[in-house]
Amino acid sequence: MPDGWSTTGEMRVRLDTDPYLERYAARVRGMSASEIRALFAVAARPEVVSFAGGMPATSALDMEAVESVAARVIRDHGATALQYGGGQGRPELRALLAEVMHHEGVPCHADDLVITVGGQQALDLIARCFLDPGDIVLAEGPTYVGGIGAMTSNQAEVRHVPMDDDGMQVELLEEMIEQLAREGRRAKYVYTIPNHQNPAGVSMSVPRRHRLAELAELHDLMIVEDNPYGLLDFTGVTYPSIRQLVPERVVYVGTVSKIFAPGVRTGWVAAPRPIRDKLILLREAADLCPSNLTQMIVESWLTTQPWREQIKRFTEVYREKAEVMLGSLASEMPDGVHWTVPGGAFYIWLTVPRGIDTSDLLAKAIAQRVAYVPGRGFYADGSGGDQARLCFSYPEVSRIHEGVARLGELLHAELDLVRAVYGDDAPQFRPRHDGPAGGLGG
Amino acid sequence: MPDGWSTTGEMRVRLDTDPYLERYAARVRGMSASEIRALFAVAARPEVVSFAGGMPATSALDMEAVESVAARVIRDHGATALQYGGGQGRPELRALLAEVMHHEGVPCHADDLVITVGGQQALDLIARCFLDPGDIVLAEGPTYVGGIGAMTSNQAEVRHVPMDDDGMQVELLEEMIEQLAREGRRAKYVYTIPNHQNPAGVSMSVPRRHRLAELAELHDLMIVEDNPYGLLDFTGVTYPSIRQLVPERVVYVGTVSKIFAPGVRTGWVAAPRPIRDKLILLREAADLCPSNLTQMIVESWLTTQPWREQIKRFTEVYREKAEVMLGSLASEMPDGVHWTVPGGAFYIWLTVPRGIDTSDLLAKAIAQRVAYVPGRGFYADGSGGDQARLCFSYPEVSRIHEGVARLGELLHAELDLVRAVYGDDAPQFRPRHDGPAGGLGG
Repeated sequence: MPDGWSTTGEMRVRLDTDPYLERYAARVRGMSASEIRALFAVAARPEVVSFAGGMPATSALDMEAVESVAARVIRDHGATALQYGGGQGRPELRALLAEVMHHEGVPCHADDLVITVGGQQALDLIARCFLDPGDIVLAEGPTYVGGIGAMTSNQAEVRHVPMDDDGMQVELLEEMIEQLAREGRRAKYVYTIPNHQNPAGVSMSVPRRHRLAELAELHDLMIVEDNPYGLLDFTGVTYPSIRQLVPERVVYVGTVSKIFAPGVRTGWVAAPRPIRDKLILLREAADLCPSNLTQMIVESWLTTQPWREQIKRFTEVYREKAEVMLGSLASEMPDGVHWTVPGGAFYIWLTVPRGIDTSDLLAKAIAQRVAYVPGRGFYADGSGGDQARLCFSYPEVSRIHEGVARLGELLHAELDLVRAVYGDDAPQFRPRHDGPAGGLGG
Repeated sequence: MPDGWSTTGEMRVRLDTDPYLERYAARVRGMSASEIRALFAVAARPEVVSFAGGMPATSALDMEAVESVAARVIRDHGATALQYGGGQGRPELRALLAEVMHHEGVPCHADDLVITVGGQQALDLIARCFLDPGDIVLAEGPTYVGGIGAMTSNQAEVRHVPMDDDGMQVELLEEMIEQLAREGRRAKYVYTIPNHQNPAGVSMSVPRRHRLAELAELHDLMIVEDNPYGLLDFTGVTYPSIRQLVPERVVYVGTVSKIFAPGVRTGWVAAPRPIRDKLILLREAADLCPSNLTQMIVESWLTTQPWREQIKRFTEVYREKAEVMLGSLASEMPDGVHWTVPGGAFYIWLTVPRGIDTSDLLAKAIAQRVAYVPGRGFYADGSGGDQARLCFSYPEVSRIHEGVARLGELLHAELDLVRAVYGDDAPQFRPRHDGPAGGLGG
């Protein structure tokens, strides 16, 4: 992904011709959109089967119910819904979201919550609350693109803790903490998505959760626990949240994007009170207050509609899609390609054999009418060239096999090419972690 | 406004007992909510006539029309409305907002726009785009509280340019620019609200606009032009926007909060393309994307409803309220109290005689069932102790005289007290500008 290109694919003006360059703050001077952005515009065409965007299946919503909910909010409470509100978010909504957390087994009080513009704003406010330029955050590798964006746009340095099928390798986290201590440094927080992780599709095992909580106490660490997917579980296994284990050390992020709809842009943070107070002030400086209208639509959804049944319906949809994709991967992928088996949510994480670079391959894939997200996007350090995220949540079931077959065909052809050129000495694009070897799909 | 207190009035825990204090980023360490916040909770009681919040009269909206607009968006485009969208905002909405700008005489192309969460997010993204810690911004004094918040939460230093009845005293701006140059420094931008300014209620004269544009060229300055109120004009006078005069030097901020409704949290930035591209990236890191649902409601409002007539209706409502308040001020205020005469929008700016501190007076005012915002909130430098903002947009017409009469009675009593204690030597709470003397209501 070459740097130095402007955000619009069609312009491709080098940024060093930007006449405003010297005026920018340090945090944005090096910021530029990747070429990937232009490719994704093409990937949105209907003939392309896109496993790229992490989008929920909004078609599984009862639209008549949503319509009646929205109409009733305006009919009964229009003057409030259309007015400014408080920066922390409506107490009514916070009480209901605390119930959603209880439903998942995470104890919480409505007063601990701050409503945000989806989970992304929560991650950004947390980054702004804790991170000075140069501060270190330890995060799973791979991890959520937007989480990396929130941290790096606040000029933090993200170091990755390798993962395996049981989530973050907490024993390697401990080594990294000790290594930092030897350098006289300390991570400002550990960022984790313990449930059905984006992009890896795996969950942190119960023993590792307990060990993570212990390490937090032992090394006086804060943890940012990002949980958009916990309720979309295929397996019936229950995991304790990190918040339950060490509540005073956890800033917890939730969202209704995956259990209701992203279009209402409603997420939340649950934090210890002094941190909550800072987050409210940061939120007010960022955008004053959440939308009363969308907050009240979510409230009405959670009070008048069978939202627990809706979550079950979503989960069934995603489980079926996951099974179809796993079946197709088994039949279509060449030897040497590995993938994770998700226990919930949206994602399968693919590792391809040496010699193939998933960033380079994307243009060809889109030409073959299939799209994915190259692995490098999920690392702050340039790793992930041999990895890719496949999201099965959005495409129709009937098209998933078609898309995987196209990708399989492409990988077969690429591998033939690699073998013809390099024999057994193909270049390696495995993660370039500073930490010990390991990692998903290895 | 004592520092060191937490945000919740009921707790009033000193922040130095915050166990997380050493973990925070520098930008938030000194951030704390003022005592004013607790007072405003009381001011929301129905027996209080509140001139505090700058809230539009949403009751003047045709709620049936809004309800049918929202229902139709979900009925016809539910799957899109409830899904994620692009970071720049929907092209359809951008085209319509460019039309709104044209309606006000400000030329603009839809591609120049980035949709934001109200005007506040625009101000924050601009601050994040340009401001490193310690950078200087020149802003009107007084100016919008949220504008100050966006700049200071990004650790900038705000220096105020005094105002008079013709807006920012641009000749003093020039002196400040030259003074900065002598210090070897330069302002990152000039922040101005040229139309019906919040809180001063005045507009920048035409010659000053031209001079401001000339100064920008002469001294190579950027200007942030914040224009929430331009369309709410009582007088029929037309002013050129600064963007029209020097488009490549202006980042322009608009919002539908005052011409439609703040509850949809929809604003925008219009900027030169390279800056626009940075703002899109910053927005994506901040909260991914605007709500498709609220964007589409605004689109449908602007395409199916008589929005120009709605703006006229709002303007008539505010003009009547302004007249009532001006009449009441004339009859109820003691000698020595001065106020501005607004040519549009929401605000009257009050200056009280020496010896009275409007921050100290607020608790008494609320006990007398009338609320305002003390002047200090509108300055970054502690000025404004003898000033206050009265917002006439929200209270019902029938209650405005009542509220002003209560405030007048209180000021009469306070002045009697001040004279009894100090005679003619009352302490002075006039603005403590670094610049030359001057200022509104002086």
